[in-house]
Amino acid sequence: MEGEPTLRLRIFDLNCWAIRYLSKRRQERVRLIGDTLRQESFDLVLLQEVWSEQDYSDLKVKLSRCYPFSHYFRSGVIGSGLCVFSKFPILDTLLYQYSLNGYPYMLQHGDWFCGKSVGVTGMGVTAPLLSLSLQLHAEYCRDKDAYLPHRLVQAWELAQFIRHTSKAADVVLLGGDLNMHPEDVGIRLLRGWTGLRDAFAEATHFEGCKNGCTLVPGNCFTDKSELLPFPLGIRIDYILYKAISSYTVKCEELKTTTGPAPGMNIPFSDHEAVMATLHIQRQGQPACATLGTADLALADVVTEARTEVGVGLRAAQRQRYSSGRMAVLPLLLLLLQAVAALATLAGLGTEQPFPKLSFCLLAFLALGVLVLATGLHLFHTMEVKMLHGTEDQMWMALRALQERP
Amino acid sequence: MEGEPTLRLRIFDLNCWAIRYLSKRRQERVRLIGDTLRQESFDLVLLQEVWSEQDYSDLKVKLSRCYPFSHYFRSGVIGSGLCVFSKFPILDTLLYQYSLNGYPYMLQHGDWFCGKSVGVTGMGVTAPLLSLSLQLHAEYCRDKDAYLPHRLVQAWELAQFIRHTSKAADVVLLGGDLNMHPEDVGIRLLRGWTGLRDAFAEATHFEGCKNGCTLVPGNCFTDKSELLPFPLGIRIDYILYKAISSYTVKCEELKTTTGPAPGMNIPFSDHEAVMATLHIQRQGQPACATLGTADLALADVVTEARTEVGVGLRAAQRQRYSSGRMAVLPLLLLLLQAVAALATLAGLGTEQPFPKLSFCLLAFLALGVLVLATGLHLFHTMEVKMLHGTEDQMWMALRALQERP
Repeated sequence: MEGEPTLRLRIFDLNCWAIRYLSKRRQERVRLIGDTLRQESFDLVLLQEVWSEQDYSDLKVKLSRCYPFSHYFRSGVIGSGLCVFSKFPILDTLLYQYSLNGYPYMLQHGDWFCGKSVGVTGMGVTAPLLSLSLQLHAEYCRDKDAYLPHRLVQAWELAQFIRHTSKAADVVLLGGDLNMHPEDVGIRLLRGWTGLRDAFAEATHFEGCKNGCTLVPGNCFTDKSELLPFPLGIRIDYILYKAISSYTVKCEELKTTTGPAPGMNIPFSDHEAVMATLHIQRQGQPACATLGTADLALADVVTEARTEVGVGLRAAQRQRYSSGRMAVLPLLLLLLQAVAALATLAGLGTEQPFPKLSFCLLAFLALGVLVLATGLHLFHTMEVKMLHGTEDQMWMALRALQERP
Repeated sequence: MEGEPTLRLRIFDLNCWAIRYLSKRRQERVRLIGDTLRQESFDLVLLQEVWSEQDYSDLKVKLSRCYPFSHYFRSGVIGSGLCVFSKFPILDTLLYQYSLNGYPYMLQHGDWFCGKSVGVTGMGVTAPLLSLSLQLHAEYCRDKDAYLPHRLVQAWELAQFIRHTSKAADVVLLGGDLNMHPEDVGIRLLRGWTGLRDAFAEATHFEGCKNGCTLVPGNCFTDKSELLPFPLGIRIDYILYKAISSYTVKCEELKTTTGPAPGMNIPFSDHEAVMATLHIQRQGQPACATLGTADLALADVVTEARTEVGVGLRAAQRQRYSSGRMAVLPLLLLLLQAVAALATLAGLGTEQPFPKLSFCLLAFLALGVLVLATGLHLFHTMEVKMLHGTEDQMWMALRALQERP
C-alpha cells in the first residue's frame, strides 16, 4: 500500500494570552492572530487562553470561510480558554477537567478559577483523527514549585485519558502549553506512558527560536526576570503526535514564531506559536506501538513521578491537619462565648457591665475563622483523596509494567 | 468461528448504602455482602456507596482469595463510593468526575460532596473488557426535579465518555445506580447515544422483584413514603452492556434480590442487588453497531434532553443573576458604613454617641452576605458554563445525526 496518498496536515498551536483587562494589547493581538490564520490557511488551529468568549466569536466570524468548523470549550468560572478551528469536520467533542488544579485561595495564580481541562475533538480527516488542545497548571517558581504534584496529577490524568480515548483514532495530535520543560518528569511521564512523539525532536526541518523555545526573552511581552536563569528562553508549548493503527506520521517541518509577527511591531502573544507540518500515510501493517520498547525506563519515570506525588500527598495531609487544628480554636472560643452569654442571661456576673461590642466582634471573628478553616479542610481533604488516588493508579501501572514478560 | 468457546461472565451490582453513622446496620450488612460474595463467587462485582474506606479494606481482606483484583476510586470530599472486585486482572483504571453534581449548599442532599464519578476499569478477560461502575445524581422529588438538568449533563457526559473510551474494548459493561427510571429521557439518551443494551430487557430468563425493580416497598430500609406513587417499586439500578468488535454478548439470566438476604433477616442494602449472567462469544464478522439504526428516534431523544438542559440553563442564569443582585445590597451598605465611619473620624456628628455595636454587627452581617453571594455567583457561573457547553455538544450531535446519509 506504499502508493496510498499522503495527507499533509498543517497545525498551528498558540497560547494566546488573551485575558480581558489584564493582557496587554489584547484586541490588537487577537485581530492579528485572526488575520494571520486567515492568510496562512492551516488545517488545524489549537488555541489556548482565549478567555473571552467574545474574542472567540470574533475569530469565528473572521475565520468562518477558511476554517468552517470550530469549537469553544466551556468550563470553570472563567472558562477553559481552549478553542479549536479546523478545515475538517469536527464530529465530536469532549471536555475532561483535571481533578486537581491549584488552590482557590491563591487568587493571584488564578489557575483554580479557569477549570483547566483538555478539550478533545474527534475529526474526520482521511483517518479518524483525535486532536487535543490543553493547558496544564502554570509553574510560578521553578525552585520551590508547590504546584508540581498538581501538575503531575494533571500529566498523569492526561496520559491515562489519552490511553483510554485514543485507541479508536488512527492519529492523535496534542497541542498546548504544558508548562513543563522538555526534560521535566511530567513530560517524560506523558510521553512515555502514551507513546506520543515530540514534533520538535522528530522534525526533519526546524526553523524558529533556538532549541524550539516558546517563551523567549526577545518577546516584548514576556517577564524578563522569570527568564533570567534561561537566557535562550524555555520550551513549554508542544505539538505531540502518534499514529495508532496502520498509519505513520512524520513531522516534516516545525516552526516557531520569533517575536514580532511578520510586518508588525508586536508578537501574537507572550508565547511563541508552534507550527508543524505532518505527513500522514497509511501503510500495510500496523505501526509498532512505541510502548513496551522501553519499559524499564518508563518504570523509572513513573516511580519518579510517584515519589513527587507522594511528597505532594504528605504536604496536603499536613495542610488538612493544620486547617483542622485551625478550626479548633474558634470553636472553643465560640463555646466559651456561648457559656458566658448564657451565664449573663442567667443573671450571673451582673456586678460589671457586659462588654457587648467586643463580645460580638470576637464572635464574628471566630465564626469567620471557623468557616475559613472548614472550607480549607474540605478542600485539602479532596486534594488528599485525588493525590492518593493518583499514587494508587501509578502503583498499579508500575506493577503492570513489572509483570510484563 | 462458531466453535470458539463461550465465556460465561457473572456480574454482581449493588448500591450498598454504607454511609458511616447514617446508614442503618451498616457493619452487619457489609459483613453480609462480603460473606455472600465469597460464597457465590461472581466474576465481577461492582459496588456503589461504599463511602468508608475501612469498609472497602475489610471487604478486600475478606474477598482476597475469590477476587484477587480490586480497586477503590477516590474523589470528592467524602469519596466516590465506587469499588470493583474482580476475578480477572484489572489492567488500568480511570476516574471521570462529572462536571456538575448538585449544589454545595444543599447539605441535606450531600451529592456535591461525594464527587460523583464513573470509575473505569480495563480488564483482560478473553476479550479486553471495559467495566464501568457509577452513580448519578439522586432524584429527590420526581414532580419538581430540580436536579434533572444536572443528571442529564451527567448522562450525556457519561455517554460521551463511553463513546470515547470504549472503542478499544471488545465488550463494555456498565453497572450502577443511575437514579433514573427506564423510560426517563436520561436513560434513553445514554442507551441511544452509546448503543448499550439493558440486561433486564434482553435477559432470556429473569428472576426477582417484579419489573426488575431495585427500590421496592418490601425492603425494610426503603423510605415507604417516597415509593407511594409506585406500589411495585422502581427500577433505577442497571446492568448495561455492549459488544463492540467481533464479539457478541447475550444476557442469559438476570436476577435481583428480593428483600432479606437468603437465611438472614435483613437485606444487603436499601437497594436490591442486580446479578447478570452474560455469554460472551467471538464471532466471525464484527457485530453491527446498534448506533445508526434508529437515528431519527435518537435525534428526538437528544432534542428532548437538550430542551431540559436549556431549561436548567435558564434557571442557572436566573440564579447567577439573583446571587449577583444579592451582592449589591451588602456592598452598598458597606460603602455607606465606610462613609459614616470616615465622617465620624473626621469629627462630624459628634453631638450624638456613635452606635459602635450595631455598626459592627451590621458590617459583619453585610460582609457575610457579600461572601455568600459571591460564592453563589461563582458557583452558578460555573453551572451556566457547563450547561451551556452540554447544550452546544448536544447541538453538534444533532447536526451530525441529521447530516448522516
